[in-house]
Amino acid sequence: MSLKDIQKDVHNWTKQFDPQYWPPHEITARLSEETGEVAREVNHLFGTKKKRGDEKESNLGQELIDIIFTVTCMANSQDIDLEKEWEKMMDEKSHGRDKNRFKKKI
Amino acid sequence: MSLKDIQKDVHNWTKQFDPQYWPPHEITARLSEETGEVAREVNHLFGTKKKRGDEKESNLGQELIDIIFTVTCMANSQDIDLEKEWEKMMDEKSHGRDKNRFKKKI
Amino acid sequence: MSLKDIQKDVHNWTKQFDPQYWPPHEITARLSEETGEVAREVNHLFGTKKKRGDEKESNLGQELIDIIFTVTCMANSQDIDLEKEWEKMMDEKSHGRDKNRFKKKI
Amino acid sequence: MSLKDIQKDVHNWTKQFDPQYWPPHEITARLSEETGEVAREVNHLFGTKKKRGDEKESNLGQELIDIIFTVTCMANSQDIDLEKEWEKMMDEKSHGRDKNRFKKKI
Repeated sequence: MSLKDIQKDVHNWTKQFDPQYWPPHEITARLSEETGEVAREVNHLFGTKKKRGDEKESNLGQELIDIIFTVTCMANSQDIDLEKEWEKMMDEKSHGRDKNRFKKKI
Repeated sequence: MSLKDIQKDVHNWTKQFDPQYWPPHEITARLSEETGEVAREVNHLFGTKKKRGDEKESNLGQELIDIIFTVTCMANSQDIDLEKEWEKMMDEKSHGRDKNRFKKKI
Repeated sequence: MSLKDIQKDVHNWTKQFDPQYWPPHEITARLSEETGEVAREVNHLFGTKKKRGDEKESNLGQELIDIIFTVTCMANSQDIDLEKEWEKMMDEKSHGRDKNRFKKKI
Repeated sequence: MSLKDIQKDVHNWTKQFDPQYWPPHEITARLSEETGEVAREVNHLFGTKKKRGDEKESNLGQELIDIIFTVTCMANSQDIDLEKEWEKMMDEKSHGRDKNRFKKKI
């Protein structure tokens, strides 16, 4: 399951809809919603918050993958190649401005 | 570049740091920050907002991949297998509760 | 109902709890969750998304005020005076760097 | 400085612009951006993250007030009375479903 496959999966699944992709601002709002669901789950799993009884059990893995799905919708709708972007980012992290950003082990 | 490769890339790159991964709440805050950067970029590209001159040029593809990177850090730190989660989600979308959620083409 | 009153309301209401305020990262996660709920509501009201039948009716006004509540919790927990911050911001907007940021009417 | 005054402040300040308020999705994207800036600041103040040298010093109080400003823009643009919403929420918290949501002190 490569990044290309993921983009293809999303392309094939969404082509049953009309429009195939929402406008960018709506995908962004969805991304904000999905990010909020991860945050809620993290508070539930690792924080002080007590869930209301009527909220159904959730799952961090599924919340995370919902974000990747939403990001992929945005990428597809804007003709962005996530694999190229990944390589560019890892190259930047290895050689560029982020190289010394965090404390390294001695 | 599969989801497994991505998780491995992140594992290899982060193992130079101590701690290798931040605590879940800090990764969540970072995810919120990265989501905000996508939102800013979308307003810049598709909205009314005028960027201040001193903000450097940005790039939607890189902002999206930063989210995938952050999600992968969370997955790695919590032993979540993103490929399994992807398959579970696509299966749910195809056969489960989301099947009729959006308007289909006729 | 001044900003000072709001901070007092929150102070009085939260002092029944232990701890009175969550740690900053947990309040931040909650803020992300509340922001996501506004985003969902905006997609519902102004976008393409169709709500699932089992989601109860929501209300933009209450979603917005949940954000103000969460922001006030953070402010209280960090001894931040929101009224002073408001005045500083409005002063900055009127005289400072943001003065010419958006297109004005002629 | 009451919630009504805040809504008036924002109304007066924004009426110099055209349009006076962005569309709801753009305000939502801005809200996501401001929430991300709070998250970044919280990671900076309370977390592991090291800021890059070229990021200028920030301030949690101003980041929080930026959120209140953005929320107020949304409220104004949608004719929402924040004071009424505040009272409704506090009433709900005191008498409604949230009453026993968190651990109380003994």
